[in-house]
Amino acid sequence: MDNAVDWVAVDWGTSNLRAWGIGADGSVVFEKSSPKGMGKLARDEFAPALVEVLDHLTPETGTRLDVLICGMAGAKQGWLEAPYVEAPTDLRGLFSGAVRPVVDDGRFAPAILPGVCQKAGDDNVMRGEETQLLGLAALNPDFSGLVCMPGTHSKWAQLSGTRIEHFSTAMTGEMFEVLRTNSVLRHSLTGDLDGPARAEGFAAGAADGLEHPERLLGMLFRVRAGSLLSGRQPDWCAGYLSGLLIGTEVASNRHLIGDAPVPLVGSPALCRLYQDVLGMIGADGAPQDATEIVLAGLKAARSFAA
Amino acid sequence: MDNAVDWVAVDWGTSNLRAWGIGADGSVVFEKSSPKGMGKLARDEFAPALVEVLDHLTPETGTRLDVLICGMAGAKQGWLEAPYVEAPTDLRGLFSGAVRPVVDDGRFAPAILPGVCQKAGDDNVMRGEETQLLGLAALNPDFSGLVCMPGTHSKWAQLSGTRIEHFSTAMTGEMFEVLRTNSVLRHSLTGDLDGPARAEGFAAGAADGLEHPERLLGMLFRVRAGSLLSGRQPDWCAGYLSGLLIGTEVASNRHLIGDAPVPLVGSPALCRLYQDVLGMIGADGAPQDATEIVLAGLKAARSFAA
Repeated sequence: MDNAVDWVAVDWGTSNLRAWGIGADGSVVFEKSSPKGMGKLARDEFAPALVEVLDHLTPETGTRLDVLICGMAGAKQGWLEAPYVEAPTDLRGLFSGAVRPVVDDGRFAPAILPGVCQKAGDDNVMRGEETQLLGLAALNPDFSGLVCMPGTHSKWAQLSGTRIEHFSTAMTGEMFEVLRTNSVLRHSLTGDLDGPARAEGFAAGAADGLEHPERLLGMLFRVRAGSLLSGRQPDWCAGYLSGLLIGTEVASNRHLIGDAPVPLVGSPALCRLYQDVLGMIGADGAPQDATEIVLAGLKAARSFAA
Repeated sequence: MDNAVDWVAVDWGTSNLRAWGIGADGSVVFEKSSPKGMGKLARDEFAPALVEVLDHLTPETGTRLDVLICGMAGAKQGWLEAPYVEAPTDLRGLFSGAVRPVVDDGRFAPAILPGVCQKAGDDNVMRGEETQLLGLAALNPDFSGLVCMPGTHSKWAQLSGTRIEHFSTAMTGEMFEVLRTNSVLRHSLTGDLDGPARAEGFAAGAADGLEHPERLLGMLFRVRAGSLLSGRQPDWCAGYLSGLLIGTEVASNRHLIGDAPVPLVGSPALCRLYQDVLGMIGADGAPQDATEIVLAGLKAARSFAA
């Protein structure tokens, strides 16, 4: 048995699963990952997938090891639905909304944290980001303000300490993918998308998106026209599309952006792009370590358990 | 032989082909259509597709029947590329830019009209709509102003008589299709999309799009959140998505819309939706008969031939 493991923290998203064994002193004892994300699993495959990742663990006789999970495992299509907590809400209360799926194996006692929803004519949902937001608050006790979480479905949230006041979702990452793959723009986005003209295209697209976010449906066609008329290559076109979408997203949140740096929580490459675009309007983006943040969130959620 | 046919007018789009036999007096002698649109044909299949549709015709001995074609048959991926004419331009000059593919059959002398492009940092292209615009101008000699052409790639053009001054393209129709088919929104858009709640969803989406066109990337996610949280059914969601996209498109052109009615050239169902949305901002949309318009355009292009 790995005596040092006190409990296990799990971030279970749509496309993969990451688990960290946490020692009694809060340190990370081991780290495991699996490609068995929620999107690939039927309901009865979640328990085996978790056991597979944690199979090397043996809790003390007569006890079960706590496993605290955040993310899409708690969705309606996931392992066991963890009903949303409604914003505005204090994220320190997340654990009290956790649900407890059964694992026949006998060694583990999993709990899945809820997502956060928003109603009152401004319907929205998040699952996973709420735990990152709690982690950000735990690591930065004096922080209040706007947080940007770039991704497939980017979130922009307003935090007051551990309290989430309001949030929105932009389908930016998914839009890039569906347009690249399924629209007429695919003809301009086939080949080497990461060539030397990508940065120039990105800057041009971001400038257009920042200046005219209301014209997105029209600007998108410039990708196609640019390759037909101006000989734009796939790398320029991919950069333009990416910049246009991120520029539009940032511009639509401009009224919320103040003088304080905006923490960016997401993949390092994506956070750099958002930081660049924020810089174009004179704002500061502050990329965070997303792994550190989600771990801090799971620890904080557990620490506030009743 | 059909003695009454003086020449043949053809609208050859991506998805189908329509042909009209025109008599010496300008009347329509016959009408034919074929599903053999440009998108389904290799280069060497265009001539046989045309002959198939016109096979019942026998020109007088020693002559060939003129066939005047507009649309995607002149695209780079079409039958024979008809290089774009650059806007601003007088559309009466379209015919002088026509190209002449060869048909071995010997009975037909086809000419394909060019599309129109726009450069100078505002790259854009159209193929087929330029002929409709010429038709609109021919049928309404006193008209100058904004024209809206709803569709997969909607065009908004500014006409001064037969002169096209400027135009833009909005990927509205294609966006609806790719999001419905390929994005996370598909989960909310499966089932009966034409149920009784579609009109209510459309009105709600159009209002959101008109009010905040700069927030499209965020508003889109309301489709998903609305079905997760508020029990919105697929018909409401489809209406919301359609309304949101059209509302956003109309709002992004608001600075061009004046007191005069905006002619709408497209399918009757789509034109009605645009008319409704224009009405929500106190503007008048004036649906046109698109078939009459394209025929008038082909006739006008031919009448201005050198």
